[in-house]
Amino acid sequence: MNPELVYRSLLTPLTFIQRNAKVYSHKVAIIYQQKRFTYGEFTARINCLASGLRHSGLEKGDRVAFFCFNTPPMLEAHFAVPLAGGVLVAINTRLAPQEVAYILNDCGAKFLFVDTELANIIRPIQDSLETVKHIINISDIAEFAPLEGEDYEAFLQTGNPEPVSWVITDEMETISINYTSGTSGKPKGVMYSHRGAYINSLGEIIETTLTPDSVYLWTLPMFHCNGWCFTWAVTAIGGTHICLRKFNPSHVWKLIQQEGVTHLNAAPVILISLLNNRDCPPLLKTPLTITTAGAPPSPTLIAKISEIGAKIIHVYGLTEVYGPYTVGEYQADWQDLDITEKAKLLARQGVPYIGADGLRVVDANMHDVPADGQTMGEVVMQGNMVMTGYYNDAEATERAFRGGWFHSGDLAVMHPDGYIEIRDRMKDIIITSGENVSSIEVEQCLYRHEAVLECAVIAIPHPKRGEVPKAFVTLKEGVEITEQELIQFCRQHIAGFKCPTKIEFTNLPKTSTGKIQKYLLRAKEWVGFEKKVFGG
Amino acid sequence: MNPELVYRSLLTPLTFIQRNAKVYSHKVAIIYQQKRFTYGEFTARINCLASGLRHSGLEKGDRVAFFCFNTPPMLEAHFAVPLAGGVLVAINTRLAPQEVAYILNDCGAKFLFVDTELANIIRPIQDSLETVKHIINISDIAEFAPLEGEDYEAFLQTGNPEPVSWVITDEMETISINYTSGTSGKPKGVMYSHRGAYINSLGEIIETTLTPDSVYLWTLPMFHCNGWCFTWAVTAIGGTHICLRKFNPSHVWKLIQQEGVTHLNAAPVILISLLNNRDCPPLLKTPLTITTAGAPPSPTLIAKISEIGAKIIHVYGLTEVYGPYTVGEYQADWQDLDITEKAKLLARQGVPYIGADGLRVVDANMHDVPADGQTMGEVVMQGNMVMTGYYNDAEATERAFRGGWFHSGDLAVMHPDGYIEIRDRMKDIIITSGENVSSIEVEQCLYRHEAVLECAVIAIPHPKRGEVPKAFVTLKEGVEITEQELIQFCRQHIAGFKCPTKIEFTNLPKTSTGKIQKYLLRAKEWVGFEKKVFGG
Repeated sequence: MNPELVYRSLLTPLTFIQRNAKVYSHKVAIIYQQKRFTYGEFTARINCLASGLRHSGLEKGDRVAFFCFNTPPMLEAHFAVPLAGGVLVAINTRLAPQEVAYILNDCGAKFLFVDTELANIIRPIQDSLETVKHIINISDIAEFAPLEGEDYEAFLQTGNPEPVSWVITDEMETISINYTSGTSGKPKGVMYSHRGAYINSLGEIIETTLTPDSVYLWTLPMFHCNGWCFTWAVTAIGGTHICLRKFNPSHVWKLIQQEGVTHLNAAPVILISLLNNRDCPPLLKTPLTITTAGAPPSPTLIAKISEIGAKIIHVYGLTEVYGPYTVGEYQADWQDLDITEKAKLLARQGVPYIGADGLRVVDANMHDVPADGQTMGEVVMQGNMVMTGYYNDAEATERAFRGGWFHSGDLAVMHPDGYIEIRDRMKDIIITSGENVSSIEVEQCLYRHEAVLECAVIAIPHPKRGEVPKAFVTLKEGVEITEQELIQFCRQHIAGFKCPTKIEFTNLPKTSTGKIQKYLLRAKEWVGFEKKVFGG
Repeated sequence: MNPELVYRSLLTPLTFIQRNAKVYSHKVAIIYQQKRFTYGEFTARINCLASGLRHSGLEKGDRVAFFCFNTPPMLEAHFAVPLAGGVLVAINTRLAPQEVAYILNDCGAKFLFVDTELANIIRPIQDSLETVKHIINISDIAEFAPLEGEDYEAFLQTGNPEPVSWVITDEMETISINYTSGTSGKPKGVMYSHRGAYINSLGEIIETTLTPDSVYLWTLPMFHCNGWCFTWAVTAIGGTHICLRKFNPSHVWKLIQQEGVTHLNAAPVILISLLNNRDCPPLLKTPLTITTAGAPPSPTLIAKISEIGAKIIHVYGLTEVYGPYTVGEYQADWQDLDITEKAKLLARQGVPYIGADGLRVVDANMHDVPADGQTMGEVVMQGNMVMTGYYNDAEATERAFRGGWFHSGDLAVMHPDGYIEIRDRMKDIIITSGENVSSIEVEQCLYRHEAVLECAVIAIPHPKRGEVPKAFVTLKEGVEITEQELIQFCRQHIAGFKCPTKIEFTNLPKTSTGKIQKYLLRAKEWVGFEKKVFGG
């Protein structure tokens, strides 16, 4: 008997379900369409899946891939896979077949669980999967033909609902691998530890004020950083998950009102589509907390959200830090500010979460930039909420961890009050005549023009100024405007050196997740040139 | 550079103040009488105290004793002592001189900080203090003469407000030692680790729903389990501490209303004195959460608390588990129950906190008792929220940790819904004709009689039945009742074998903290006999 076990138990999300299987056995854990699972039933299904995986030959550390929507099996996997001793790989459902093949081979998945609606993505690559030994179909909708393989519900029957004993012995073991979206090359497998997932889950509970009464709606995909760890956090607090196969604004409003949803997470672009939907109620009956990330919420968005009686929390993070890492923590003295002022403060990415220990904005020599709200530097992070590394890629890990800090690649300023504000992705910054121009700032200016539907600004080489901004713009349908008119518009709003010198009207290249691939735009422009590195 | 540092930082309450020194530098951290300290000022004073301690010769692991009330220095110590590398020993201000001397010598304190009002407790023992090298007077009230030694504010001046670098290198290092009250012998020094204090603090935030808007009133002494870790928890969330030198119901109500107090912790007996006070308002303006422990809250108390618009949370724990360990977690389906039914459910000690991993009720062979709400067993605990051991007492530690679990010495039943209910202290159970009688149950019966002011029930030897219950009763002033009348009263309410066979009208012996010393009552009755051990 190791006496340390008395007072040092493993930090792992597995404790969450172990506790709530008892504490909330009769409480509803998951609502999905007409189905309701209590914590007791949720746990039984988790145990079935975990023991089923072991019976099918899962060995400790094996990767188990899930390629499916926000349905109950995806939630079950978040506990069952690590309980069995495996490592969960939740794959983005919007990826193209070759991208999925790359991920499955890179992580060496032994099991692949697929929603039958996505079977057509797998079919063309099935022969190129080097390690997958078991394919299990999640037949959520009957009309889709399954792949050759087992059926999810039948697979659960191969296991049993009795408690499954843990096999982890170290809280630093890997619980999941999440692939980056790869806006600049091959996706990388970001490894999360049990300890990190545990600490981050408690952080989410505290920062977004989850309670046992919380009803959380799954608008955020669970394949994004394990749903920003809310898969574990909502379970930890004993709240209710509302699963959501597909995002549809009218349906989301219906669920919010019908089930008394208290929390949801989504990017501003999703929130805009929600608020502009005709089913958006004038006032919510239940207080709703919306946590947003990916871009700063605009003053209009913030105003609209408080109008309907909801609260917005702005957070920032990356796949490499388990999702959210900083939060635009409200200060009591912001209360009396007008909406524009408040929105300006709330648009900042903020301060570290409880549990997020290290956050700095540094120059190329790892010195902190002055906290003047002006000087840009790279955001670096350290501590329990940072990934343990990239799977099977020691070189990329070492590069990301240089100087003992994780390098985010994001450029920010540090405000005098300790709040960070992201100015740009590091590789997107434009360095013109020695001045740094944030591509985001130029894009935000362009977006203010009513003719602009979408845009992307990049640096292009210039013989004298080093680099200059160039904009790629998609106009709204039926609208016309000239390059010079749009440049003139920018000149009225931002400094001359920040204005695009060229504008190209075009469609923008995007990843399957909808992110603009600036590197493809840059590639064309930089043939024969070498791009400067910020701060280098 | 150890690459692990990037993704594995130490779990310690020191991170809380480090974060909030930045995030809430201008927010009020502490209110005490006319003084208000911002988090910036709180941090500066902590740094002064920590560096002052180092300048005065504190070496890593040295014990630093604080013998004072709930004033700002006591809060400062909770961060400054571990920041300097020391171990905090907060001593109960109600102890007698000899008891204080025992503790100071047992822990080998090098520093002793004393509120001058308590100087008279130290004077008679000063010559017997074997290890104390520095005495520092906290002169909160000018009228009391200080001990020979330094002054607290002057001591802070010997340090400086700049950030102090940490010296801990392992999260399992000891952050504090808390002495048990010693109802059954010498007090024992319970060691808390940085990791345990961290996890417990997050647990308190989550279970009692602390937020950055929380205003916490210090009715609970900080020398009790470091204020159940609220010293760290309230600081972690960035709430406001309201310090309170002495408990006075009228003053407490004034503070609650004046400062908009949202949270306080107190034993039911304190709550009763609060609610019966003439300044108790009919309805609170600010929602108040009251966390109580030490005894189950009565239906009357629960009703009264909800009448004034407050919420009660019932928790249970011991010094050995950082204070609260279980919570009478509300279930949604309790809502429609009447107050008596609800009170019955809330009177149970409940289920483990988030973060409290192991909780069982076991028989003498460490087998779980059936979850039938009837069979008694000992409460045992395991995990991060259990002490690392008794200071300098390997034997007592080993005894407490036998079988790999911490033995609480409390007897409980496990209900079918997984909630525990404490029935008695193990040594207080009465075993009569093979039946277990809870002394608490008999006492509760006696308390229902209006003549009874105080009582204690113990087992006394009996030739045939092994043991029988005997009651020691103090009557209210001016009331008369005979032994037989009171026994008859019991017979109307509880089973015959549970009723006292003898009643002695007397004053009850108590510790300096007001706990009844049953062992002294037992000692007289058991001369020449040997008491059975439960389950043995």
